[in-house]
Amino acid sequence: MRKIGILMGSDSDLPVVEKAIDTLKDFGVPYEVHVFSAHRTPLEAAEFSKNARKKGFGAIIAAAGMAAHLAGAVAANTTLPVIGIPVKSASLDGMDALLSTVMMPPGIPVATVGINGAANAALLCIEILSVEDEVLAQKLTEARAKAAQKVLEKNKAVEEKYNI
Amino acid sequence: MRKIGILMGSDSDLPVVEKAIDTLKDFGVPYEVHVFSAHRTPLEAAEFSKNARKKGFGAIIAAAGMAAHLAGAVAANTTLPVIGIPVKSASLDGMDALLSTVMMPPGIPVATVGINGAANAALLCIEILSVEDEVLAQKLTEARAKAAQKVLEKNKAVEEKYNI
Amino acid sequence: MRKIGILMGSDSDLPVVEKAIDTLKDFGVPYEVHVFSAHRTPLEAAEFSKNARKKGFGAIIAAAGMAAHLAGAVAANTTLPVIGIPVKSASLDGMDALLSTVMMPPGIPVATVGINGAANAALLCIEILSVEDEVLAQKLTEARAKAAQKVLEKNKAVEEKYNI
Amino acid sequence: MRKIGILMGSDSDLPVVEKAIDTLKDFGVPYEVHVFSAHRTPLEAAEFSKNARKKGFGAIIAAAGMAAHLAGAVAANTTLPVIGIPVKSASLDGMDALLSTVMMPPGIPVATVGINGAANAALLCIEILSVEDEVLAQKLTEARAKAAQKVLEKNKAVEEKYNI
Amino acid sequence: MRKIGILMGSDSDLPVVEKAIDTLKDFGVPYEVHVFSAHRTPLEAAEFSKNARKKGFGAIIAAAGMAAHLAGAVAANTTLPVIGIPVKSASLDGMDALLSTVMMPPGIPVATVGINGAANAALLCIEILSVEDEVLAQKLTEARAKAAQKVLEKNKAVEEKYNI
Amino acid sequence: MRKIGILMGSDSDLPVVEKAIDTLKDFGVPYEVHVFSAHRTPLEAAEFSKNARKKGFGAIIAAAGMAAHLAGAVAANTTLPVIGIPVKSASLDGMDALLSTVMMPPGIPVATVGINGAANAALLCIEILSVEDEVLAQKLTEARAKAAQKVLEKNKAVEEKYNI
Amino acid sequence: MRKIGILMGSDSDLPVVEKAIDTLKDFGVPYEVHVFSAHRTPLEAAEFSKNARKKGFGAIIAAAGMAAHLAGAVAANTTLPVIGIPVKSASLDGMDALLSTVMMPPGIPVATVGINGAANAALLCIEILSVEDEVLAQKLTEARAKAAQKVLEKNKAVEEKYNI
Amino acid sequence: MRKIGILMGSDSDLPVVEKAIDTLKDFGVPYEVHVFSAHRTPLEAAEFSKNARKKGFGAIIAAAGMAAHLAGAVAANTTLPVIGIPVKSASLDGMDALLSTVMMPPGIPVATVGINGAANAALLCIEILSVEDEVLAQKLTEARAKAAQKVLEKNKAVEEKYNI
Repeated sequence: MRKIGILMGSDSDLPVVEKAIDTLKDFGVPYEVHVFSAHRTPLEAAEFSKNARKKGFGAIIAAAGMAAHLAGAVAANTTLPVIGIPVKSASLDGMDALLSTVMMPPGIPVATVGINGAANAALLCIEILSVEDEVLAQKLTEARAKAAQKVLEKNKAVEEKYNI
Repeated sequence: MRKIGILMGSDSDLPVVEKAIDTLKDFGVPYEVHVFSAHRTPLEAAEFSKNARKKGFGAIIAAAGMAAHLAGAVAANTTLPVIGIPVKSASLDGMDALLSTVMMPPGIPVATVGINGAANAALLCIEILSVEDEVLAQKLTEARAKAAQKVLEKNKAVEEKYNI
Repeated sequence: MRKIGILMGSDSDLPVVEKAIDTLKDFGVPYEVHVFSAHRTPLEAAEFSKNARKKGFGAIIAAAGMAAHLAGAVAANTTLPVIGIPVKSASLDGMDALLSTVMMPPGIPVATVGINGAANAALLCIEILSVEDEVLAQKLTEARAKAAQKVLEKNKAVEEKYNI
Repeated sequence: MRKIGILMGSDSDLPVVEKAIDTLKDFGVPYEVHVFSAHRTPLEAAEFSKNARKKGFGAIIAAAGMAAHLAGAVAANTTLPVIGIPVKSASLDGMDALLSTVMMPPGIPVATVGINGAANAALLCIEILSVEDEVLAQKLTEARAKAAQKVLEKNKAVEEKYNI
Repeated sequence: MRKIGILMGSDSDLPVVEKAIDTLKDFGVPYEVHVFSAHRTPLEAAEFSKNARKKGFGAIIAAAGMAAHLAGAVAANTTLPVIGIPVKSASLDGMDALLSTVMMPPGIPVATVGINGAANAALLCIEILSVEDEVLAQKLTEARAKAAQKVLEKNKAVEEKYNI
Repeated sequence: MRKIGILMGSDSDLPVVEKAIDTLKDFGVPYEVHVFSAHRTPLEAAEFSKNARKKGFGAIIAAAGMAAHLAGAVAANTTLPVIGIPVKSASLDGMDALLSTVMMPPGIPVATVGINGAANAALLCIEILSVEDEVLAQKLTEARAKAAQKVLEKNKAVEEKYNI
Repeated sequence: MRKIGILMGSDSDLPVVEKAIDTLKDFGVPYEVHVFSAHRTPLEAAEFSKNARKKGFGAIIAAAGMAAHLAGAVAANTTLPVIGIPVKSASLDGMDALLSTVMMPPGIPVATVGINGAANAALLCIEILSVEDEVLAQKLTEARAKAAQKVLEKNKAVEEKYNI
Repeated sequence: MRKIGILMGSDSDLPVVEKAIDTLKDFGVPYEVHVFSAHRTPLEAAEFSKNARKKGFGAIIAAAGMAAHLAGAVAANTTLPVIGIPVKSASLDGMDALLSTVMMPPGIPVATVGINGAANAALLCIEILSVEDEVLAQKLTEARAKAAQKVLEKNKAVEEKYNI
């Protein structure tokens, strides 16, 4: 199975990114985690991105805050799907990272998830791999069913508590 | 090859969506275009989404404006990758559609591109198919090279005009 | 008397929603509370909405955060009045939920209250029922009088403390 | 049948408000249109609101732009449902009117629709009247069906044009 | 000397408003404090405003949060200068109150200060009274000099600590 | 009678500012108009402000766009009331000028009106002068009555056209 | 004299950038103009930046719109001062470009000017060169004096037209 | 070597500004720190700015919050490069200070860094001095290398912890 690259601009993004790691683990999807900064280690970020396809990666997640260029810098160097996670920082409630990640110019797409949306970034990667992988597709269906089940159980608890 | 579903919430979104259609055509990727409204024809939108994988779709693009729920409504009914295009409408400069599309809850990801970013939505789908399709991967690389070439030519024209 | 449906997208919305429940209780208006997610349990949300009128509901409150689609998804499946409560989440201070709830396309209205405005959502439902229910209308008038009285008392306390 | 009051803060709001008038006409719902300014003719606005219920009104629509206080001023003087239409003006793209209309304090709800959302304001009133009026309820269902039909036709036209 | 009216929409605004009271006290300017809600006690707010000039008021401060209509409601009922203080509430960081206070339609001005800017609201009132009151004008000049002196002292402390 | 100073940061602000001039003319209030830039002619702006009180000014209007510092720069140099008009420019819809004008630090108030709100800036000055000028106060009352009358006439026209 | 590099992400930025070129010409400061895209020709942008200092550049201007990464990408590859011009595009009024340019992480500064602020970007470069170049410093002083003179003349024209 | 002036509008900005001081110290660049308020001590701010070049300063950092005019006021009085630090205050998450600092009119540039971006402000000054100072240029290169090294080490730590 193809691997997922998980890049973050700074190790301070780890608390957000860990939900992506956990989700991939849950689905048994292999991954590699790296700290590459678009601005401090641009070469490493570019090198990783250029070689990702031939090294067996199927998609790359890039998490960054503020003027979040990492996802775009990765996307500029690969034609693999790149998933951007805008990370909320000390100011502007994540709006800076969201706009810096999602408003990409034509030709270099970044698939952007919500602010701090690391679990969804991982799920998107799994969905991408699932296009040609029926086992993963099946697992996704089961996860959805489980999530629905959980909502139904919570619904039941709420109904019992509040409805007479 | 797997097809791409292109949904829009209203046919008024066509001028935006056509760039996605053109891009898929350029890459020889098959597609199907539909007008399904998350609010006016929710059943059709849900039916399409539920059956998309087994009908041979590989990803679904959903374009909508204002309280843009279409991409989320599609994503709720499929585990295929769903690409959301926030469409700019008469007020708020597209910010309403952007937030309604990208800020999805954990479990139901929407891969969001920039406001009116239809070409990038199509490219994202092609990148997704390219994970297991070397011919497409090759075409993407060539398109990138061509785009780079075009920038270099424009650079040359600008250099000649402005630098002495 | 017709019942009020109170839906929330997640049981984490309960602290907000409880003010709606309390308000309905105060007015003796019957209600039913459910946790239905527009994205995780879309069928249940749609089923409830489709049957709400004939099951004796008079209005439906839907509370959700982030890309808050629940109110719109309910409104798409009923012609009863739907009241949307945008719930503030971890980012963007509730602006995402507000725009996702209020900016509905023509044809499918959602009566939106302020961010976390659960008490007002309930009052709106009571006002709706009051159109044909003089007892409720009377109770609303009394509640307004009581609220005015409370302001006047606070005014008096402030006047006594600050004015010489 | 109860009437709908349609108030606007200035006659410059008429191009927006006319969609509400047209919608009510389409449904055969009686209405009265007035220009009452929350700031220039506050008495008239208050008088109208105080007497609206006993004069046979079932709901009041209030449209205003900028620091849009009209809907709130009306709501302060009636316990009928008040629908606020935030009107887009020369600056800030309607955000000023939206926040001034929707962020009401607990106790005085305003059912807010989208910026310039006059058709939805009228539909909301019709939905409110429909709670106890089966004929109106039926008409709403038919209008929804017609709107769905229109989307399906547009879908067909788009399918025929773009799908081979 | 003319008095300053200090109104607030809710006694929860007191922690903000107290800075206005303190400032007026410092300058020996008489004032009256009231809790009048534009929505819950609109009559009291209007009555106060209509009679303010003949009761010897020279300006009115109005503080309110959310869809902050109080200043506008006061201004609609007096031709005295009205100073609006937008109060920051639980959501949107005060932007809702700011826009609801400042974006008044032509004809009914509200002199708006910054979010929670109660000290400046009081100073503005003192400046207004100072136009025809040389003693107050002198006190304002002295206060400015004192404030400047304080900055210069802080400057000195900072210079001594950080400059060698 | 005391004069009103009308300053603008650039003569491109004239189309906005002229409404202030016209309003003062209508009320027979004397004024002086100047183009003083907070950044290009800071000395002239400061000189004017420092001498304004003793030269017989009663209030100063300052209009500026973008990072609109003019009103603040004037306020720093006078204890007369300073009215700030945030002027909308090519970007950001006037939000930049609004925040730069209204969010003044404690001690140096600027009475801010809405974006491009020049008529209200003039009215605010007239209200300020009216505190000690009964003739002006009377004129303001009449202008309000006239404005109300105009709304009532528009109301009548609308009623006749739309109500049957 | 050291040269100024003027980079733009796309030749569609030329109408904005030309004001920077004209300003440098006016001051007789040598420059080089290039179209380098952070995403389409990242190598060229990086190469230019890495070599800029030793090739005699003294500062680099980078203009880009949307998720404007160019200035940051340049700054990541040089320790010369980098001036970022956020360019307004079809959506969001330039706010996307502003945040993507200015909110840089610690270590990699971008000196950001206002949206479309190309003249100021050039002036900033001239100011930088002027630190060690008295002739340029003198020219800047003269330009300021000329700009002040122009304001004073406009002031005079306005005074003559509006003041009696 | 030329000195760097570090100005702040209030000593409450010190916790932000100290990162600028520390950075200059690290590079051995001389500096002077002052508290000058654009509004409370405008003369001192102007005097400092006018004399800065001839007193041996090479650039001036100005930090301020809210309607942050300090950087603009300094820039109006010098042709040295002025670096603006928008400081986050109690409301609006720093957006007010950012727009008040960056949106300067043509002719008076302020080189703006991110909200609270004091370290970058200092680095920008060092970069400016480095244009004609090879030793500083070398130190900047080393600091970049060290920062890159630190990212690589964190990358290694993360790789070892998360990759198997």
